[in-house]
Order: sequence, then structure tokens, then C-alpha cells
Amino acid sequence: MSRILGIDPGLHITGWGVIDFDGYHLKHVAHGSVVTPVTDSISVRLSNIYKGISDVIEQYSPNEVSIEQVFVNMNPTSSLKLGMARGAAVCCVGVCGLPLFEYTPNEIKKTVVGVGHAAKEQVSVMVQKLLNCGNVKADMADALAIAVCHAHHKTFYKVAS
Amino acid sequence: MSRILGIDPGLHITGWGVIDFDGYHLKHVAHGSVVTPVTDSISVRLSNIYKGISDVIEQYSPNEVSIEQVFVNMNPTSSLKLGMARGAAVCCVGVCGLPLFEYTPNEIKKTVVGVGHAAKEQVSVMVQKLLNCGNVKADMADALAIAVCHAHHKTFYKVAS
Repeated sequence: MSRILGIDPGLHITGWGVIDFDGYHLKHVAHGSVVTPVTDSISVRLSNIYKGISDVIEQYSPNEVSIEQVFVNMNPTSSLKLGMARGAAVCCVGVCGLPLFEYTPNEIKKTVVGVGHAAKEQVSVMVQKLLNCGNVKADMADALAIAVCHAHHKTFYKVAS
Repeated sequence: MSRILGIDPGLHITGWGVIDFDGYHLKHVAHGSVVTPVTDSISVRLSNIYKGISDVIEQYSPNEVSIEQVFVNMNPTSSLKLGMARGAAVCCVGVCGLPLFEYTPNEIKKTVVGVGHAAKEQVSVMVQKLLNCGNVKADMADALAIAVCHAHHKTFYKVAS
């Protein structure tokens, strides 16, 4: 049994989702988000992302963590902001000693929807169907999709080896 | 008396420098760097930056932290990498509950050398003269310069108020 934490980092909203995977079945465990208001200082915002992910890891004890690999096609200022949020989340995973797996946006969409260029809404609908977890907001649905993608790749590697 | 920690974050080398400032005199306390090899995974590299800064804060107990404000004029991939290193360092400052002050590269150079467009070598030479601390490598000299810049601005605000 693997417990997988998927993280979708952002400076304003960092979505997270936890699933269990026994090699055949996916099971929804929990999901949520860390929201940091723009009125807070950058060090407070980043430390709240760090603490938020740290709390999730402490509460749900995942064995593995997955995150979206970023292909930077935005402006440098947005890249810097995303980088900082990502840095806070990823260093927390490292401090907790958990292995981190990265997947491209296309790999994640292909796993969950079946096609690499699926719309955001399709990802959300499919995550809810796959995990039977009711209505989930976009950032958390993306985080759950990242966790589902890792579960899929674990099966693939098991079959392939 | 203020004890100021200056940080110059980078994914490969994060320089740091600690100084004491009594309102009139600057005193060198310590400097060093956190080096993370490219062969390590991104989560290990970022967690080592976090732990490294955390250790410095624990060992030297600074009251205030200063960092260079980034004006992004590099490509988006470099911005993302710098953002992640910066995110790990800044979230550590936030988790430790210390106030963070940001200064532009020109403010830092102007404080230390007297002109905003000084060369890197000039910053290094002037830091060594101001702090009487012998030979200091570039990344650590930059971190000490960031700390000196904050000390200067504290005096300025004190005089101005």
C-alpha cells in the first residue's frame, strides 16, 4: 500500500491531495489547500506554505510525494513567484525525508483524462469520478490528479520490470 | 545592538554573512555558504539550503535578516531555479519568525561602494575594508554587503525619524 501526496504549488493557493493506492485500486484520503493572502509579507506567505505542507505530512503520513514539473512559458516575474512557492513546498518534502516524483502537465492530463491536452475542467471531472470524492475545487483537483499520475506510473513500472 | 544576517541565495551556492551593528560601528561576526551539488535531487538541495540557513540562525541568533530584491532580467528557467532557492531560504526566515528586509542590487552597491553600478570585485574589496575581515569569497562578500546595507538603512531611518 502506498499513500501518495500530490502538491500543486502556487504563491496564492497551494493545493494538496492525498490518496491510497494498493497496486490496483485508488482511494481518496483527503484534500485541501494553503491560501496565503497578498497582504502578508513574502516570508510569512512562504513559511505558511512550508508549515501547511508540513502539517499535511504529519497528519496523513504519505510515503511518496508527487509534483508537477514546470515548463516555464510565463514571464520571468511569474516564474520567480512560482519558483518561490515551489521552493517552500519542495524543501519541506526534503526536510521530511520523503521521495519526490515529478511529472509533466501532459503526463498528468494523459493519465487522468486520456489525452495530454485536456481542459482543466475535464481533469476536475475525471478526478472526481476516479476517486469518487464529490465536488473538488480546481487547485485541489489538480493536486489529486498529480497523485493519481504517480500511482499510475508505479503500476506501469511494476508491470514493466 | 542589532545582529543582522545577510543572505545571497542561489541553487548551487547560498552565501550568508552575520554582522553586529550598535548604531555606529559595524562588526564582522561570521560568514559562510551552503553548497548543494547538482548531483543531489532538487528536494535534497532545497532542504539543505533550508537546514543550512536554519543552523546559521540557531548558532548566531540574528534579530533581523536582509536579502537582495530580485529584478528578474534573466530567462524564465533561471528565474524558476533562483526562485526555488530563494523560496527555501526565505521560508526558513519566516518559520524562525525573523523580520526580513529587501534591498535592490543598486542600493546594496551604493551603500558599500558609493556607486550603484559598482563591479562585483569592488563590493568584495569594500566589504573586507568595512568589516576588517580578511579575504572573503564573492558569494559570502555579497551576503555581508546585504547585511551592511541593512545596517546603513537602520541608521538612515533613525536619523530621519
